[in-house]
Amino acid sequence: MTKRAEPPMALAFAEAEKAGWRGEVPVGAVLVGPDGAVIAVAGNEVEAGNDAMAHAEMLVLRAGAAALGQKQLDGCDLYVTLEPCPMCAAAISLARIRRLYFGAYDPKSGGVEHGPRIFAQPTCHHRPEVYGGIDERRAGALLRAFFKERR
Amino acid sequence: MTKRAEPPMALAFAEAEKAGWRGEVPVGAVLVGPDGAVIAVAGNEVEAGNDAMAHAEMLVLRAGAAALGQKQLDGCDLYVTLEPCPMCAAAISLARIRRLYFGAYDPKSGGVEHGPRIFAQPTCHHRPEVYGGIDERRAGALLRAFFKERR
Repeated sequence: MTKRAEPPMALAFAEAEKAGWRGEVPVGAVLVGPDGAVIAVAGNEVEAGNDAMAHAEMLVLRAGAAALGQKQLDGCDLYVTLEPCPMCAAAISLARIRRLYFGAYDPKSGGVEHGPRIFAQPTCHHRPEVYGGIDERRAGALLRAFFKERR
Repeated sequence: MTKRAEPPMALAFAEAEKAGWRGEVPVGAVLVGPDGAVIAVAGNEVEAGNDAMAHAEMLVLRAGAAALGQKQLDGCDLYVTLEPCPMCAAAISLARIRRLYFGAYDPKSGGVEHGPRIFAQPTCHHRPEVYGGIDERRAGALLRAFFKERR
């Protein structure tokens, strides 16, 4: 829970870049507390953790719950460089995140503005405020560069 | 990865009951390998773990990936006493589970046959075979008894 000078989205981009250097899909996430303090930062760890569910969002949500000692994260905000997938979107709802800020839209695998549109479901019990498309070009370029290199 | 004599769904019910005794919503899950061996069992740990995402399904999927040392669980089957929520359904897809067997249907919070119907989405990249309503009356009674006691 150290305060940091950088804006959360810049921290998320730094995590995404680091993830890419490690051979992970370059996605980064930052959890910020109600007072603006950074609670947790993470990049994807699917490869390193041998875990298809180790998305950056899941890692910061779990780390946040552990750091705060509470099962839900009311009042906390999540910053992530890519539109969360359906699993992460549903986890964001379960964790009662206040605001979700994300970078690039993900028509293929996103779950917020695409696919199951988790927060738009009548059975969704908590909906964060959603701000998408932040620094979209940078977020998209990072992902495209990564996948181009691998093909 | 010890072989057990009980059928997986009976083990899942035993885990659900134990979870209820601990004050957790009584849901249990069992992960079974391609050879029929039980790889992981768990009940909900939301309260004990202070983690809104610590659903039984997530716990056995993560434990399975760790036990097998592989990020995806191709050929593995998941047994759970309640219809998985959208987060767990999406995780089941990411983990490439072969078959999903579940007990009670969950119109309020389910994500397989209800709500976002995760596997029915065109953007869902892997769909398990799904067998729902197994021992539905027992699964439902367990949950109803738990919530009745708390109200």
